[in-house]
Amino acid sequence: MTPTTVDLATDFKAAFREHPAGIALITARSPEGPVGLTASSVASVAIDPAALVFSVTRTTGSAGLILAAESFLVHLLDARHAAIAGAFAVSGGERFTPEQGWATLATGEPHLAEARVALRCRSLQQVPVGSSMLVVSEVLDIHTAEQPGGGVPLIYHDRTFRAVGDPI
Amino acid sequence: MTPTTVDLATDFKAAFREHPAGIALITARSPEGPVGLTASSVASVAIDPAALVFSVTRTTGSAGLILAAESFLVHLLDARHAAIAGAFAVSGGERFTPEQGWATLATGEPHLAEARVALRCRSLQQVPVGSSMLVVSEVLDIHTAEQPGGGVPLIYHDRTFRAVGDPI
Repeated sequence: MTPTTVDLATDFKAAFREHPAGIALITARSPEGPVGLTASSVASVAIDPAALVFSVTRTTGSAGLILAAESFLVHLLDARHAAIAGAFAVSGGERFTPEQGWATLATGEPHLAEARVALRCRSLQQVPVGSSMLVVSEVLDIHTAEQPGGGVPLIYHDRTFRAVGDPI
Repeated sequence: MTPTTVDLATDFKAAFREHPAGIALITARSPEGPVGLTASSVASVAIDPAALVFSVTRTTGSAGLILAAESFLVHLLDARHAAIAGAFAVSGGERFTPEQGWATLATGEPHLAEARVALRCRSLQQVPVGSSMLVVSEVLDIHTAEQPGGGVPLIYHDRTFRAVGDPI
């Protein structure tokens, strides 16, 4: 027999700390100005309708404003965006600075123009799970960078931003 | 302005083909015997209750049997499990062979005993999205390998299994 859980919350956090994930930056226009957050939980769900899912661990602050927005923009990030991903992952990080290269879409969302791809979405369904919220999102349109930059995707693993590694 | 979508489904698939993801192997006991599938959509959602989410793109076959199971086991895979992940990702792949190192938990689920961690879950909520199903899952208990093997986690990117890369 294998050992089972001693402390479920501790073991759960340790398990997912080691589970690698791609990194997204989700932005929206809000009554309080542009808002954004870094998410490691974005995954595609369906093709018809084109839909993705992500979760936020609280429903206040930037997350709450994104949950309330009519639409939001999900940028899939490359390794060269690690500093921006870090800034949007902590409170007090430098956000929406000119150096980060923001534009605004005609529909109002802040757009990191050099991101490889940004999917403009609307919330289809919000599913509360504990104090988190799962957001099932329909993709409305997709913006690709004019000059993709040839970067490798960014991943988060063991509390560290990393690049995608070699094929096995 | 950046170019917008020409064909939403095509651009959506291309966007997520480039989005890296950790890899899980989800197994269950079923009336038809042990079943399993490879998933690239597993993410943690909440700590209290400890909950994760994943999606399946159809509700038939192995996926349907896992959706119907009272409980299932979510293994988070290392790079050395790439061949097993591949076998469970295609129809007709070799599954549950002695060489893969399967055991059975007291609760009945097939257990890849050398996996770093396996989270036994029950479905809390199943949310249909198009022809896919999103499965919000409560973690019941967690099984860690006695000899973790020191592997690096497995990721899937651009239709290729890869290892986690270097810190940035």
